[in-house]
Amino acid sequence: MITLTSDFGLKDPYVAEMKGVILTINPQATIIDVTHCVEKFDIRVGAFVLASVASYFPKDTIHLAVIDPDVGTERRPILIQTKRSFFVGPDNGVLMLAAQNQGIEHLYEISNLKFMLPKVSNTFHGRDVFAPAAAHLDKGIKPSEFGTEITEAATPKFASVERRNGSLIGEVCYIDDFGNIITNISQKDLPKNRVVNVKLPGVLQNISFGKTYAQAKPHEPLALIGSHGFLEIALNQGNAAEKFHAKAGDKIEVSHD
Amino acid sequence: MITLTSDFGLKDPYVAEMKGVILTINPQATIIDVTHCVEKFDIRVGAFVLASVASYFPKDTIHLAVIDPDVGTERRPILIQTKRSFFVGPDNGVLMLAAQNQGIEHLYEISNLKFMLPKVSNTFHGRDVFAPAAAHLDKGIKPSEFGTEITEAATPKFASVERRNGSLIGEVCYIDDFGNIITNISQKDLPKNRVVNVKLPGVLQNISFGKTYAQAKPHEPLALIGSHGFLEIALNQGNAAEKFHAKAGDKIEVSHD
Amino acid sequence: MITLTSDFGLKDPYVAEMKGVILTINPQATIIDVTHCVEKFDIRVGAFVLASVASYFPKDTIHLAVIDPDVGTERRPILIQTKRSFFVGPDNGVLMLAAQNQGIEHLYEISNLKFMLPKVSNTFHGRDVFAPAAAHLDKGIKPSEFGTEITEAATPKFASVERRNGSLIGEVCYIDDFGNIITNISQKDLPKNRVVNVKLPGVLQNISFGKTYAQAKPHEPLALIGSHGFLEIALNQGNAAEKFHAKAGDKIEVSHD
Repeated sequence: MITLTSDFGLKDPYVAEMKGVILTINPQATIIDVTHCVEKFDIRVGAFVLASVASYFPKDTIHLAVIDPDVGTERRPILIQTKRSFFVGPDNGVLMLAAQNQGIEHLYEISNLKFMLPKVSNTFHGRDVFAPAAAHLDKGIKPSEFGTEITEAATPKFASVERRNGSLIGEVCYIDDFGNIITNISQKDLPKNRVVNVKLPGVLQNISFGKTYAQAKPHEPLALIGSHGFLEIALNQGNAAEKFHAKAGDKIEVSHD
Repeated sequence: MITLTSDFGLKDPYVAEMKGVILTINPQATIIDVTHCVEKFDIRVGAFVLASVASYFPKDTIHLAVIDPDVGTERRPILIQTKRSFFVGPDNGVLMLAAQNQGIEHLYEISNLKFMLPKVSNTFHGRDVFAPAAAHLDKGIKPSEFGTEITEAATPKFASVERRNGSLIGEVCYIDDFGNIITNISQKDLPKNRVVNVKLPGVLQNISFGKTYAQAKPHEPLALIGSHGFLEIALNQGNAAEKFHAKAGDKIEVSHD
Repeated sequence: MITLTSDFGLKDPYVAEMKGVILTINPQATIIDVTHCVEKFDIRVGAFVLASVASYFPKDTIHLAVIDPDVGTERRPILIQTKRSFFVGPDNGVLMLAAQNQGIEHLYEISNLKFMLPKVSNTFHGRDVFAPAAAHLDKGIKPSEFGTEITEAATPKFASVERRNGSLIGEVCYIDDFGNIITNISQKDLPKNRVVNVKLPGVLQNISFGKTYAQAKPHEPLALIGSHGFLEIALNQGNAAEKFHAKAGDKIEVSHD
């Protein structure tokens, strides 16, 4: 099973070209669209959407994500094997949030020409490199046959959490329609305490952990782990992003006393 | 086979999460999107779209519809078995137009936790309750295992037709791109006569029944049963909704002399 | 395998009705959406998108395209068999760019009522004629059983290239997001020379052939065969359509000295 995430939109022939390439290599493939409406070149949103959905798919699903502003440059095409699934795409961080969340086991540069289209364009690796890689992987080719194992992948700020003096410093990843502030800090990074201090630009507040929004009093904030597996700051019956003037890219510092 | 209808849009991860849940439970499932672009919370439009498509799908298809403004409240999740297919969704009427059209045989409240995700959120029953129910049903679980049989489901005005003094009182359901006025009155509700009196707000007119638009003179109205199975008022080569100032939600009264 | 291209948009029930019809006739069908966001009635764009994707799909794929402004008139429903695949849709040119590119072998008018829905509407042949034809073809019915073989199909200007005094006269088909000017002139029509004279309205210029954009100096034009198989005029690191004031429908004349 192969999922597709991109910023290609719904009007152009690009997504269908990728599907045609996959189905030519592996006519048995099941292809599921995640979304093709990520804002153009917005790696962070693509990374967040992919991290949200990946854990709902069956084990061994292949997740293909093409938000690729640097196509045609030196940035590498990579294949990540995690404890649960596979990720194929450019080495720019779009895969990392989801992959780290599942636990990375192996990281490969995709370089074996045997598993690319005969003619690789400079502008569309989604079709010429990533789609064929996903199709061959789905057909049973071993990950190690796609290229050499590598040890590091690009990890932009939104895909890395820093520890400093007992604090966790992360980033706001996404503000959802309800105004919930979704961060890049995953459950396993967090202290086990029931109260955390949260620092957003200009705000410092103790916030209790809860399981559902209703555990806070109306219009009071709470911290919880959302269904995507990341720390989220919410307001019961209110808009947390508005109250805390938070936006994607803001730093967030979490500590406990 | 499972169809999906929702107001989730095409940008967010929600639809893909539902698909992941379905395919995790039943990797063999064939999933067909009806639309995810129903205007947010517009139960009537969702109901109309579902009623339009349902009869074109194979027998035993499972239709999942999530336009669910009251998620997290007391409104029940339900499963409807008709003479042709199955409907899964919230008990707010979104399923009723299509289900009544096919003839309802059994109605169940979905309450068996065994067929839900382990953790049911308050905000996303599409993923946590309805998608798993559809997937298990598709896998062969009997409808009666999902919960107790019930006798009534919520039937909003757009899903019910009233009989009063020999007249049928229904509602305008949808104005299509051509200005055709599509109602909630289905073929089996209608008198057998070839002429019906149609009363819309401020309009009373005898309208003849036809089979195709061209049976009326140019710019003259006619009544017909559209491909969705409902009574439709059209203007040959013209816009009936404009002429009759009709809009979704308007009452329509149909009688015969 | 069946692909779908249309101008139906993503809100209405029409695309799902076609899928329901296909799956009722052939529950094993694999259906792939190319796009449903072609601008309403824009046959040329539909033709271009279809020509772009067709060669990426497996041999024997059935491509169904419904951009059909003249539905209900005398225009014929047709089925084209090429060296690689099958095309089903209205006889208005939407199929011709892709089909000619692959080499047309047989052309049939679809007239056998056995392979249509029992009731054929005047407004929606996509569902009532083309979808059933594609589904039956996918199921193994021979092309010749759908109707009589015909010798000519409608070929609008965008689907025909004229030869005059050693010149090729074609048309601008599409301006892509990068400003590349994509024409309807395919590789096999072109002279083998390495330099071509290109004449667009108000412009006459010798342009060299290249394989990649970077073969021209920055801001200099080059001619190349794009991944869709058609002649394209591009500017290295620039917008060719802006520079040459080109738009879809413009004539383009190609000659060599």
